[in-house]
Formats: sequence, structure tokens, C-alpha cells
Amino acid sequence: MKVSRRTLLAGAAGAVALGKTAATQAPQPPSDPTKVRGKPSRALGQRAAGEKPQRQVRPGASSSGTPHQDLYGTITPADLHFERHHGGVPEIDPKTYSLLIHGMVDRSTVFTLADLKRFPAVSRVHFLECSGNFGGRTASTEITPQQLAGLTSTSEWTGVALATLFREVGVHPKATWFLAEGQDAALLTRSIPVSKAFDDALIAYGQNGEAIRPEQGYPARLFLPGWEGNASVKWLRRIELSDHPFMTREETSKYTDPLTDGTARIFSFLMDARSLITYPAYPVTLARGWVEINGIAWSGSGKIQRVDVSTDGGATWTAARLQEPVLSKAHTRFRHLWNWTGSEAVIMSRAVDETGYMQPTRTELIASRGANSVGYHLNPITGWLVRPDGAVVYKQEPWA
Amino acid sequence: MKVSRRTLLAGAAGAVALGKTAATQAPQPPSDPTKVRGKPSRALGQRAAGEKPQRQVRPGASSSGTPHQDLYGTITPADLHFERHHGGVPEIDPKTYSLLIHGMVDRSTVFTLADLKRFPAVSRVHFLECSGNFGGRTASTEITPQQLAGLTSTSEWTGVALATLFREVGVHPKATWFLAEGQDAALLTRSIPVSKAFDDALIAYGQNGEAIRPEQGYPARLFLPGWEGNASVKWLRRIELSDHPFMTREETSKYTDPLTDGTARIFSFLMDARSLITYPAYPVTLARGWVEINGIAWSGSGKIQRVDVSTDGGATWTAARLQEPVLSKAHTRFRHLWNWTGSEAVIMSRAVDETGYMQPTRTELIASRGANSVGYHLNPITGWLVRPDGAVVYKQEPWA
Repeated sequence: MKVSRRTLLAGAAGAVALGKTAATQAPQPPSDPTKVRGKPSRALGQRAAGEKPQRQVRPGASSSGTPHQDLYGTITPADLHFERHHGGVPEIDPKTYSLLIHGMVDRSTVFTLADLKRFPAVSRVHFLECSGNFGGRTASTEITPQQLAGLTSTSEWTGVALATLFREVGVHPKATWFLAEGQDAALLTRSIPVSKAFDDALIAYGQNGEAIRPEQGYPARLFLPGWEGNASVKWLRRIELSDHPFMTREETSKYTDPLTDGTARIFSFLMDARSLITYPAYPVTLARGWVEINGIAWSGSGKIQRVDVSTDGGATWTAARLQEPVLSKAHTRFRHLWNWTGSEAVIMSRAVDETGYMQPTRTELIASRGANSVGYHLNPITGWLVRPDGAVVYKQEPWA
Repeated sequence: MKVSRRTLLAGAAGAVALGKTAATQAPQPPSDPTKVRGKPSRALGQRAAGEKPQRQVRPGASSSGTPHQDLYGTITPADLHFERHHGGVPEIDPKTYSLLIHGMVDRSTVFTLADLKRFPAVSRVHFLECSGNFGGRTASTEITPQQLAGLTSTSEWTGVALATLFREVGVHPKATWFLAEGQDAALLTRSIPVSKAFDDALIAYGQNGEAIRPEQGYPARLFLPGWEGNASVKWLRRIELSDHPFMTREETSKYTDPLTDGTARIFSFLMDARSLITYPAYPVTLARGWVEINGIAWSGSGKIQRVDVSTDGGATWTAARLQEPVLSKAHTRFRHLWNWTGSEAVIMSRAVDETGYMQPTRTELIASRGANSVGYHLNPITGWLVRPDGAVVYKQEPWA
């Protein structure tokens, strides 16, 4: 049973490894965990002592972003899901929680949490993204994936289809909009087209297998797959059906896109396709050799069809491998093997979704929407510059 | 904006609700969270104060089970993933961690954790189940889904395909088995067919987006999709290639199935198809009306093809709805709407997988394997008895 690693390593010194550098050096011998009885089972697990992924709390503490650079796969751990709120995270007693649906309906009804849970449930994996999720207008090149796009996360959401509740209360055929109102100090309100309810909207109470977390809307929230996050009103207490939008504060003072002619694009709910390389990225220092470039791509319009990766500043593009199964309106992990030889390089990714929409360049975004729309719904192609010494920094247009 | 809930409720009293009972009573008015500024953002989220799902630590503290009755969907939160160990949970320094692959290979090699992470990665959603995951032989009827089958959980696992490492070290064509050795105080060892490596085995370092938890094998473990949990050796430090199995302690004294002729079934890795109703189940008290029976089904052989539900003790069966997408070797949520009228009823589920295998009755299990195999690989159909007063208790064969 006894094997000397040093002896074996000597024999392995000539191994041709796939970008493997450390394998030719003997790792430090660990203190021997085989000689010590380990810890007993616990009611709740904890992370390993040295693993400390954290959300980045932004100034004002009204939002915090997901540390994409620390994550694998597609699921965001619930305690690392981004948060954004306009009046802090309220404490709501699930026993007294209720949701009122009224207005243009046959039967105005108050649903308790138990009522909501008794209806047929659905679970679906979806991303949720804040419409202000673009930290890339900075002059600094020292920004992480978390700073660049931390306000998007993916969970398995469970709840009741809003269509089920709308049938239950008898929504009038002429009702075209509904108001969603939160029970937080901001009393956040948004107007939502009724058609979204009959498409795929949920009243969600579960997230990644457990009860929704407080900052995600506990005990229940609206969830509109693929639409800007703030429209998925959290701590939902009231839905009012109407035949017109309500023109509330949060959909007029915020979340609109000013155009160059002085008007503004409003009710721009859809989050268009976007992708982000999460490795290698700032502040990684890359070693030469084979490396798997990887990241996440998502689209509010449906499934990601393809993610192209460029390692030469956009001169040429190659389709990356997509993690299966590719799910609609969910983060999709892409991976692309690259042999970095030590030259300066700009690596970039661009997503294409099932509608054929391709993630635009910043130049294309400005051409289509004007130069004034700098706050919301920004999804330009972004890149990372790999310097000859291996340092990786943020890079935006122009690429050359 | 002001709406009186009591007024609205009076108008809604005649609503024909889908099993909705509480909607006809006004919920207690909450203290008003809209008048208080909520909590600021935090680097790590926490569960709501009243949400306390916990693993059940079993006597001896060498295992703990997942609280299926508290969970939604398919993903098990990482801190609620079941654990089982033979020498406690070791603390391993990821900086000095290494995995040696040697024996019938061209290039014996030591891989650091950084080496493992530099190889192309794969992420897949799979269940992991302890082969001793059957708590249903008890005389007690007061057992929960957690007590009955808590030793199975589902995560999105990320790692390097073992096939990639085997190609890297040059596994000899005549190597048919490998030994996997853990770095815990039990020095757990198992013999695994090489074919499994070239099928779908991983060396996993990620779980639900983050680093694997300590009790799941931090920093890296073997992961054999669909096979009994203990074969997926945790805290993996050594793999030795050979042309024969190693006949180690843990695969001879344990995890074998004694047969009636005095011999034993050994190397019975596969976890066969099974299902479990998680709601309604003990200790729920059910209210009359429509209720969505739901639970999880899984198979080590691939995808769940169908889950049948019976509400009359097995006399008749109806196919349940399956949560999409149905993934191979992963928990699949099934749901079936049932109108409980108040009569005594036995509700049961049975899984059918893509190979056509149907979850057996206990009688069928004994007929095929004899009455001595009572410790491992038990997947009989189990049921819950709903009493006229709504109390739900565990029920095993005979059903009538």
C-alpha cells in the first residue's frame, strides 16, 4: 500500500501534460488526515475553511453581486444570488403573508402562503438579471466578472403558475395589464402585460430546493422569466388587473432608456442575449499552455444557440462547447480550449440565442439606441486582455 | 391604493377554490413591513428566521440525511446534501492536496488541485445515493421521508472526466479495475471497473456552483453517476490501475448482498430505480380537497421514463407529471393532482426508468434476491396511509 510519491514523480518527470506545470513539482506533504478521526456529521454543512465566495456589496448597500469568477456550472448557490432592493430587505411573517388579486377579475381573492402551495406547482431553472447589470463603463481595467456583471444569477425556481391563479380569480378578457406591488418599504410597483402571466410567469416560493431567501422575496415573489429583475416584484402582496398600465414611479423615473430624440423607451422588459468569460479574467495571472476559457451566456428570449469565442480581439471566432442540457432563459456554461503561447491576446465571447439574435458590440448598441441609453439593458461584447506576463485585465472596445 | 382585505374577502366567500380552505378566513394582519426600512445587502445570504431545514444526524454521527419533506424541485441545497463517512470528515489543505494515478499506466502522475482544474471540465446534474438508503424496515409508522430515504441527494457536479486523466497517464489496455483510495481516517478503498471511467466517471471539485463541501469530499472526490455512494470515494488521493479487483475491506465486509445459498452478491454498484412521495407524508395532517401529491424518482440506469401514482393502495395507477427536463441519473420531481374526499387511502408511487425497469414491490425484491439481503440496495415501493382525520403515516406491504 505504501507508495513514495517522490519516487513516482521522478519517473513522471517527462510526462507530456495538458498545460500541467505543478505536476512536475512534489506538492508539500500534508499533515496526515488519515491518522486523525474526522469531524462528525452535522445538521447543516458549511463551506471548507478556505472557501470564502462572497457577494460584493455595492455602495449604499442596496445591491450585491454574484462572484462569477468563483463559480462552476450554472446553478448559483442561494446565499450568493445577487440582490437589489429599493427600501431594504423586509421581514415578513409567512403565517400572516397574503396576496390579494383584484381589479378586473370575477372573484377578488386573498391567497395565504398555504393556499399558494396547495395549487399545482412548477419548477424551472431560470436566470434573473437586474436591468442595470453592466459595470463595464469604467475607465479601470481592474474589474472582476463580479463587478462587470454580478447582477445575474440562476436558480431552480418553484411556485404556482400565475396563469393558474388568474384562471382561479377569473381575469376579465379585457384586462391587458396588471400592477404588481411589493410589501417592502419602497412599495415597489410595476405594470406587467397580462400576456406574460399566460406565458410563463410564476408566483415563486422555492429557490434551489428550499424556501426563497429573504432578499429574493420571501415568502413569495413574482417571477417573470427572461425579463428585467425589478419587474419580478418581490415580497408580492397585491396584483391589480386593469386595461392600461399604471405608470408608476419605478417605471417612469427608472428602468427606461432615454433616446436621442428626447423620448424614452419604456416597458423594455426583455433582457437580451449576453455572455461573459468568467475564466480567465481579472485578477487571474495565467500560466502558458492549454487553458479552458469558460463563462456563462444567457438570453431572455429563450435558449442559447451558440457562443462564439475569439482569442484574437474579434478577428476570428470559434463556437464553444455548451454545457448540456441547454435550458431556456437560464445561464448556460460555455467552454473553449485554448493554447496560450505567451503573446498578448484579447479574449472575447458573444452569444447567439435561438431567435438568431447576436450579442452586439458597443458600437452596434449605440447605433441602434443612441448614446444616451447608458443605464439599463446594456449587453455589449466585452473582453479580457491577457498580457505577456499572464496578467489578465478588463478590455472594452476598441479592441485593437 | 387602500383596499380593505376584509371587504374583498366577503365578496370572495363564494369562490370555488382548488382545495383552498384558508382563503375564506382573513389572515392575521401583519405588522406593516412597508413602514420600516429593511435590512441592507449582505455578503452572504441567510435563510429566513423561521425556515430551518436540517439534516437528520443518525446515531454514531457517521451519517446525516436530507430533509426531503422540506424541499422543492430537484436540487438539494449543498448544506442539506446527505453525508456518510467511515472515519469522520477530514480536513484537507487544498494547497497540498494531490491525486496520484499509478499502477498499469505509462506515466504515473501526481495531480495537484490546480492541475485538475486546468483540464477541460464537465458539469452534470446527478443524484448520489448511499446503498444503505432504506429506513423502511421499521415497525413504526411514524417515519418521515427523511428517515425513509434521506441518504439520496442531487447536485450539479463539476469536475474533470476521469477518462481525460486516464488518457493523460496512458492506462494500459489490459487494465480492467482500479482502486480508489480516500484520504480520510477510514482510508476508504473500493475497486472500480475501468469501463466506468470511460463511461461517465468524474473527479469532481464543484457542487452546485461552488467548491465541494468538506463532507462531500473536499477538495476532490471520485464521482460515479448512478452507482452506490460509497464507491464514489471522497477525499480521493490515489488511483491504482490493475487487471483485477482488490477485494478490500469495504467491499467484502460491507456493501455486499448475502444470498440464500450462502454466497453473496458483490460489486453490485448500480442503484436501481426508486421513487418516494415527499408530500403528503408523515407528519403532515391533510385537509380535504384537491392536493398535489409530489415526490422524487431516480434511477442509476438513466432517465426516469414514468412515475405511476396510486391512491387506492395499488389497485389502480396513473402516470404522474414529470418535471422537465428529465435528466439522466438525477432526481426527477413528479406531481399528481388528487382530490382527497376524506376516506382512508393508501398513496404509493413506482418509478419506471428508460431501460423499462420498474421499481419492485418488497415481495418481488425478496423473490429475486432472497430474504437475507436486508442491508443494501433496497428500493421497494413504499406508501403513506392517509387516515380519515387527515393524519398521514408510513405504510409498507401488505397494502390492504
